[in-house]
Amino acid sequence: MLGEIREQPVALLRLLEQRCELEAISSALAGRAPGVVRLVGHGTSDNAASYGIYALGLLPGWTALRDSISLTVYYGASIDFGGSAVIALSQSGRTPDVVEYVTRARAGGALTIALTNEPESELGRAAELVLPLAAGPELAVAATKTYLNELAALALLAGGAVGRLHEVADGLRGVAALLADSLPGLEAAVSPVAAACAFVGRMFVIGRGLEYATAREIALDPLFPVWAIASPDESLPAVVEAAARARAAGAALIASGSAAAEIEGASYSLPVPDAGDRLFAPLLSVVPGQLFAAALARVKGLDADRPERLTKVTLAR
Amino acid sequence: MLGEIREQPVALLRLLEQRCELEAISSALAGRAPGVVRLVGHGTSDNAASYGIYALGLLPGWTALRDSISLTVYYGASIDFGGSAVIALSQSGRTPDVVEYVTRARAGGALTIALTNEPESELGRAAELVLPLAAGPELAVAATKTYLNELAALALLAGGAVGRLHEVADGLRGVAALLADSLPGLEAAVSPVAAACAFVGRMFVIGRGLEYATAREIALDPLFPVWAIASPDESLPAVVEAAARARAAGAALIASGSAAAEIEGASYSLPVPDAGDRLFAPLLSVVPGQLFAAALARVKGLDADRPERLTKVTLAR
Repeated sequence: MLGEIREQPVALLRLLEQRCELEAISSALAGRAPGVVRLVGHGTSDNAASYGIYALGLLPGWTALRDSISLTVYYGASIDFGGSAVIALSQSGRTPDVVEYVTRARAGGALTIALTNEPESELGRAAELVLPLAAGPELAVAATKTYLNELAALALLAGGAVGRLHEVADGLRGVAALLADSLPGLEAAVSPVAAACAFVGRMFVIGRGLEYATAREIALDPLFPVWAIASPDESLPAVVEAAARARAAGAALIASGSAAAEIEGASYSLPVPDAGDRLFAPLLSVVPGQLFAAALARVKGLDADRPERLTKVTLAR
Repeated sequence: MLGEIREQPVALLRLLEQRCELEAISSALAGRAPGVVRLVGHGTSDNAASYGIYALGLLPGWTALRDSISLTVYYGASIDFGGSAVIALSQSGRTPDVVEYVTRARAGGALTIALTNEPESELGRAAELVLPLAAGPELAVAATKTYLNELAALALLAGGAVGRLHEVADGLRGVAALLADSLPGLEAAVSPVAAACAFVGRMFVIGRGLEYATAREIALDPLFPVWAIASPDESLPAVVEAAARARAAGAALIASGSAAAEIEGASYSLPVPDAGDRLFAPLLSVVPGQLFAAALARVKGLDADRPERLTKVTLAR
């Protein structure tokens, strides 16, 4: 897992090489001008979808939602898919209910796009268009580089839909450089936090807006101080206030994000570099959480790469 | 809290008396034929919104989403509200960011509808149309009768949008009768479960599709066996399988819903009557969870009506 966390700057650059696919999908999206963008995925991919809601809302101003798979796949509701676009996210491309959802949405007239590490997978074949995430083989069960590439892919498509693909790509090149520079320092900073948290029972994670995805992703491994993700955007005052309330209630605070210093009285501060654009902040702010999960497993003597009772491929159906 | 749980059958009938408002709002919705229905609310109201996604998807076949309040209120994203309907849920009608969201959505051309116990509240004034939830004064901090009336209101509007208002109202009259009949037995059945769970640290709650709202609502007070909500609809096999996996992993199972008997090896079974229509099942299946929360507080010597650090009015902003 730690090796894959460290590989993230390089994995991010590999995604940027998928230029033909990025341009083709961007113009298909712009041409469709969808009334609604339906994001589907499970676990980490569903967390990345939370970010897509903001990226697509902020750049093209489109309404995106994490769509209910059950409604279409189990209940067979007669939803009108015409005029909408579907972005399906799956590391392996093998998640059965996501494949089934995409098949039905495509038959119903949606523009279907798969974001996957495995373009030749069932999902890749079911969707009309495929963007290879190009994160490379991810062996640890906890997704790290795939999550980051999913966020980046969503930012690229959101930008591409309004003719800003190359601008977003340049921004992401900057993120890759910031990430490479800051990873060693973050690894060192996270270790004592994981040691302190090794045997607590629960943790709340606070993050709003663009950082809601980061909060969901960090909370996948739940514990119990309060972890606040502070990025310098419009949602920051609400996060600062929630953290202050948690502290007043007696919780120990862990602050991360480039505005970590805004969280008063934090027991631990894990700042990341300012990404410049609020849209890119979540690609950096998730990294302390990834490192924390890896360090926590080490402290507890567990295997971060193969947690008990979890498998790499989500077989939800 | 227990008094308000017991009042639910009567509260439900009070909602059905709001016939003029129900008819007016149903025909406004049908007239708009919204491309998307945006549901907004916090906490219990947000859980009820999860149900709205299914009710609106199954009856009129509309796409509904729990919309991001942050995107509009904090980020000021230029979302196109024209052609959409907003259903805002708030017990008190005083939740500031919901009021602000509705104000902006209405200015942007959305059909705005408030579902609240307080039609004269700020939210009631901000929205174009108001459906009084008529649950009556709710004094316990944990919402019970308001939640049930929110679900019923969403079912009525979903039915009303396709000319089936009176049919849904009849169904809900049946639910009120089933509820009145089964409450005493459920109260007795829940007590030993709460006693057994009083000092566990966490609980997972499993529910999909229409019962996803129930799972979110029961999980508001998180503990740690696994509680599975089994209703006899298309999502049942997936719930049964998830419960079996949890049991294989060593979790104690609590089974509820009218298909509770389908959950093999449950330590506790809290069946509710079959509501006849899958759409009405969540109004009955939440009740064991409400009673469980009340009984748990009693066992722990806590005050269910005024939990520490929670207030009745959500002041999210």
